[in-house]
Amino acid sequence: MILTVTANPALDVTYRTTALRPGESHRVGIVGRSAGGKGVNVARVLRALGEDPVCVGFLGGSTGAEIRELLDRAGIRHEFLPVQGPTRTTVTVVDDSGATVLNEPGPQVSAADWRSLADVVATLMSPGDVLVISGSTPPGTPPDAVASLVRDAVEMDVRVVVDTSGPTLLAAADAGADVLKPNAEELRAATQVTDVRAAAGALLDRGAGLVVVSLGEAGVVAVGDVEGVRQIWTAAPPEVLTGNPTGAGDAAVAAISLALGSNHRPDGDAVSSVAPRLHDVVALSGAAVMAPVAGDFDVPTYQRLLARTDVKETHATR
Amino acid sequence: MILTVTANPALDVTYRTTALRPGESHRVGIVGRSAGGKGVNVARVLRALGEDPVCVGFLGGSTGAEIRELLDRAGIRHEFLPVQGPTRTTVTVVDDSGATVLNEPGPQVSAADWRSLADVVATLMSPGDVLVISGSTPPGTPPDAVASLVRDAVEMDVRVVVDTSGPTLLAAADAGADVLKPNAEELRAATQVTDVRAAAGALLDRGAGLVVVSLGEAGVVAVGDVEGVRQIWTAAPPEVLTGNPTGAGDAAVAAISLALGSNHRPDGDAVSSVAPRLHDVVALSGAAVMAPVAGDFDVPTYQRLLARTDVKETHATR
Repeated sequence: MILTVTANPALDVTYRTTALRPGESHRVGIVGRSAGGKGVNVARVLRALGEDPVCVGFLGGSTGAEIRELLDRAGIRHEFLPVQGPTRTTVTVVDDSGATVLNEPGPQVSAADWRSLADVVATLMSPGDVLVISGSTPPGTPPDAVASLVRDAVEMDVRVVVDTSGPTLLAAADAGADVLKPNAEELRAATQVTDVRAAAGALLDRGAGLVVVSLGEAGVVAVGDVEGVRQIWTAAPPEVLTGNPTGAGDAAVAAISLALGSNHRPDGDAVSSVAPRLHDVVALSGAAVMAPVAGDFDVPTYQRLLARTDVKETHATR
Repeated sequence: MILTVTANPALDVTYRTTALRPGESHRVGIVGRSAGGKGVNVARVLRALGEDPVCVGFLGGSTGAEIRELLDRAGIRHEFLPVQGPTRTTVTVVDDSGATVLNEPGPQVSAADWRSLADVVATLMSPGDVLVISGSTPPGTPPDAVASLVRDAVEMDVRVVVDTSGPTLLAAADAGADVLKPNAEELRAATQVTDVRAAAGALLDRGAGLVVVSLGEAGVVAVGDVEGVRQIWTAAPPEVLTGNPTGAGDAAVAAISLALGSNHRPDGDAVSSVAPRLHDVVALSGAAVMAPVAGDFDVPTYQRLLARTDVKETHATR
C-alpha cells in the first residue's frame, strides 16, 4: 500500500481569461476545481494507474469539505485530520500568454495536530508499505515534524519518499529517508552546493538512500551508493515536451513510490528498486506535462515515452 | 421590513501581495473572506444601522455553505434557496498599486428556481415592506424574472428598489419599480441616452417612480415627477473621499430602502420618501468608500457627512 501525506493540501481553482491586467476587473471562466497539493496529486496519478493509495494530512473549512467530496468522487481513499482553519485555495489564472498563480499560506496547525497525524500514519502502515511525504508544511508545523514521520516509518520497515525543500529536505536526509526527490533548484538551495551531483551526494552522506533530482526538460539524475561505490543514473525524455509542468514532479514521485513498493525482495533497497525504473519516472513525468491539470497524465504519451527512454549508469568521480 | 434579493451572491475573497505579475507565482496573504453580492452588502449596511433585514436569493456548494455561516455569524437573517452549482467566488488581489478583480459567472439557475424565489419573497413580504433587488443575475435566468418580482411586489403594495443594469434595468422600469439606482455608466448603456437627466427621464417615462443616479465623487442626482412636473434633486459630498468605491452603491441603496420604509403615510410615494433623504444617501455612500470591505461603512465619516450634505432641488427643463 502507498500512503501519501499532504500536510498543506489545496483546493486548486483554475480560471480562464483573455488577458490578465493588473488593476482591472475581469470576467473569468472556471476551468476547474480540483483536489490539489503535492501528495494528493501523487495519489491521483497512482489511482489512474490502478493503485489504491490512501491520502492523509490536514483539512479544514468549506474548502476542506470540498476536497473530501472531490476525492470521494474520484474513488481515492483518504483519512485527513480535521483542523480549525480553512484549507488553502490555489488560484491559477490562465490567459493567452501564460499562467499566474496565487498561493494562500494554509491554515495554522499545532504540534498536537502533527502527533495525531503520526498516529494515523502508524495505524495505516505495515512493513513493506510505501510512505510518500510531499510538499510544503502549513504554518505552525514543528521543525522536526517531517523528520519524525520519516524516523517512525524507517523503524516500521516502511519505505519513505520525501519531496520537499529547505531545512525539511535536510532533516529528511538525516532521518534516513529511502528516496529524496528535490528539483535542481531546491537541492542547491537546501545544500548550498552548486553542482547537482555533489549536492545529491551531500544528502546521501547525511543518510538518504537515493536522491532523484528532477531536471525539467532534461529528465532526471539519481545518485546512490552500490556496495560503497557512488553511482549515477540518468534518464532523459526522447522528445521535447511542452505543456503544463505543474504536477510533473508529483508524477515522478508516483513512479518512484511504485518502484519502491513493487520490489518485495527482503534486501530490496531504494537503489536497486528505483534506479532501474528511472525511465518510468521520466515517462510518467513527461506524460503529466502533456495533461492540463496537475495530478493527471496523458496515457499515450506515457506509453510512448516508456518504450523509448533509456537509463544510463556511470560511476561518480569524487 | 426590508428584504434584499441577491440572485448571484458571491464569496468575496481578498488577497494581499506586493505586486501582481502576470505569468508568475505569488505567495499571497488572505485579507478576508466575506459574504458578498450587492443585495448581501445592502443587508450588511442595514444590519449595522440597527435594522433587521432578510436576505434571499440562490446559494449552492461549499461556497454557499460558507456564506450561510458568515451571515449567521453576522446575525443577518437569510432564506436563500439551494441550487445545484456552487455559488461564485470573487477574488480581489490587492497590491501596492491597486486592486485586480476576478469575477466568476455564478452557477446555472432555472425558471423553476426563480418561481421558488418569487414564492419565498411573496411569503416573507407584507404591504408597506421594502423589496431590494440588487446585482447581476446568474446564467439561466429567464429575461422576465426580475420584472416579474417587481410586478408581484407592486401588486402587494410593497415598495421596490432595483439596482441593476442592461435590459433588466429597462424591464424593472416598465414593471413600475418605485426606485431605480443605476450609476451613470449603467444608465447611459441601458437607455442609449448620453445626458444623465434625460436618460433618467426615459426610465420615469417607462414607469419608474424615481431614478437615483450615483455619480461617484460627484454624489447623486435624482429625477422624479411631482404633480406632473419633472423635478431634479442633487446632493454632493462636502469633501473629497478616497478609498474603496466597491460597495458605495450598495450603501446608497441601503439608505434609499430605509427612506422608503420609514415613510408610513399612505400617500407616501417614492419621490416624497426618498428625495428629501438624498443627503443620507450621499453620506452613507461616502462612509462606505472609507471602509476597506464592501458592505461596511465608517461611522464617523457617516455622521460628519450627514450633518454637512445638502439636497438641492431644481425644475427640469424639457
